[in-house]
Amino acid sequence: MPKLYHSPNTRSSRVISQLMLMGKLDAVEVICVDIVKNDGTGRRDPMNAHPEGKVPYLITDEGETIRESGAIMMYLDELFGQPLSPKIGAPGRGSYLSWICYYGGVLEPALVAQFAEVNHPALVGTFRTLTEVGAQLETGLRDGPFLLGDDLTVADLIMASAFLWAPHLMPDSAVVKAWVARVAAAQDSTAMEAFEAEAIQSLEVKTSA
Amino acid sequence: MPKLYHSPNTRSSRVISQLMLMGKLDAVEVICVDIVKNDGTGRRDPMNAHPEGKVPYLITDEGETIRESGAIMMYLDELFGQPLSPKIGAPGRGSYLSWICYYGGVLEPALVAQFAEVNHPALVGTFRTLTEVGAQLETGLRDGPFLLGDDLTVADLIMASAFLWAPHLMPDSAVVKAWVARVAAAQDSTAMEAFEAEAIQSLEVKTSA
Ligand SMILES: N[C@@H](CCC(=O)N[C@@H](CS)C(=O)NCC(=O)O)C(=O)O
Ligand SMILES: N[C@@H](CCC(=O)N[C@@H](CS)C(=O)NCC(=O)O)C(=O)O
Repeated sequence: MPKLYHSPNTRSSRVISQLMLMGKLDAVEVICVDIVKNDGTGRRDPMNAHPEGKVPYLITDEGETIRESGAIMMYLDELFGQPLSPKIGAPGRGSYLSWICYYGGVLEPALVAQFAEVNHPALVGTFRTLTEVGAQLETGLRDGPFLLGDDLTVADLIMASAFLWAPHLMPDSAVVKAWVARVAAAQDSTAMEAFEAEAIQSLEVKTSA
Repeated sequence: MPKLYHSPNTRSSRVISQLMLMGKLDAVEVICVDIVKNDGTGRRDPMNAHPEGKVPYLITDEGETIRESGAIMMYLDELFGQPLSPKIGAPGRGSYLSWICYYGGVLEPALVAQFAEVNHPALVGTFRTLTEVGAQLETGLRDGPFLLGDDLTVADLIMASAFLWAPHLMPDSAVVKAWVARVAAAQDSTAMEAFEAEAIQSLEVKTSA
């Protein structure tokens, strides 16, 4: 069974949510770990196999290690027959790859810069800002309810997760807001909250032991 | 024919080099454009279809638009039968996805931060630094000459391109240096230089016209 390192209410939560959506949460061993949070609380968990103590992190059945949410989400979708992505050669494949790489390569750096109020010409020059991200999303949503058209894919899950995590950084666009709401509605927030509550409890038990 | 927007001696050069390596440069229409460089020279080229005037940018035969080098390089490899990547389900697939997302999501932000000497806790916390990148590469190169073992893949092309572009930021590791040299040797630098010289000339003709 692949092993997924997870910490509640973090970037790994979207991977759990994807597994639920695919009906495959049982097919992955989830290992709950502590991490050092933005505010300095928490700790680097010796149980976490990630080389820098981050989540998410995945170890495949073949012992390959995968870091970065985009890669882990693509891999899990592929492992379970690509229910949430266009097959190689199929329509939408190019856009799909573009959104996945855009998430990690542009949205995340732009979001972190804005969140931390780092405003440096080299960062803005390379990544631009959340304004351009908003424009890119509006363009992507011109032809349908989801980024690739009619079907929800991993591209939606990962792109929308940023604004579900930081609603105050959501682009001021009705189209984008409606899409984030659609992506949220497609996921099972009740099951997710229950899962996270249990994950938090398991960590508290571990820490106090 | 897919259209590739390219500017000489930039991040799109590695895409040209990949096409040469696959013997597929003729199968893509390369459109040479000007860009605004780091030093402020150059200009945003009205010929460039990229929404922010960047390169590389790819438009597929189906009219899909792909931004981000990692996505473009994965797509072109897939389009031509995956000569430079493991197939879905094959050994190395997980590592492959990990390296591609790691390039854009970690190496590039860490490199830009170091290059521009931006040293902010939020950036270091999220992306870490080139020191961790060096460690990750050393781990990846434990089992073979290339990141996925015996065969050169897009993962090597994109990861090594950073240090071919900025050799002074190369991790101080004999293993990493030898690997960068191997990846360079696998590419046709003579053909590449000739191609870039012609691209520069075509741009000069355009600008002075
Ligand atoms: N780009 C990575 C970011 C991973 C990341 O920074 N995760 C945070 C949790 S939200 C973490 O593990 N922080 C702990 C640390 O950096 O030590 C991804 O999307 O997977
Ligand atoms: N993450 C992108 C970065 C693209 C990028 O910033 N390219 C530079 C050329 S090296 C560019 O087009 N700069 C012009 C500009 O930002 O206006 C990728 O890897 O494709």
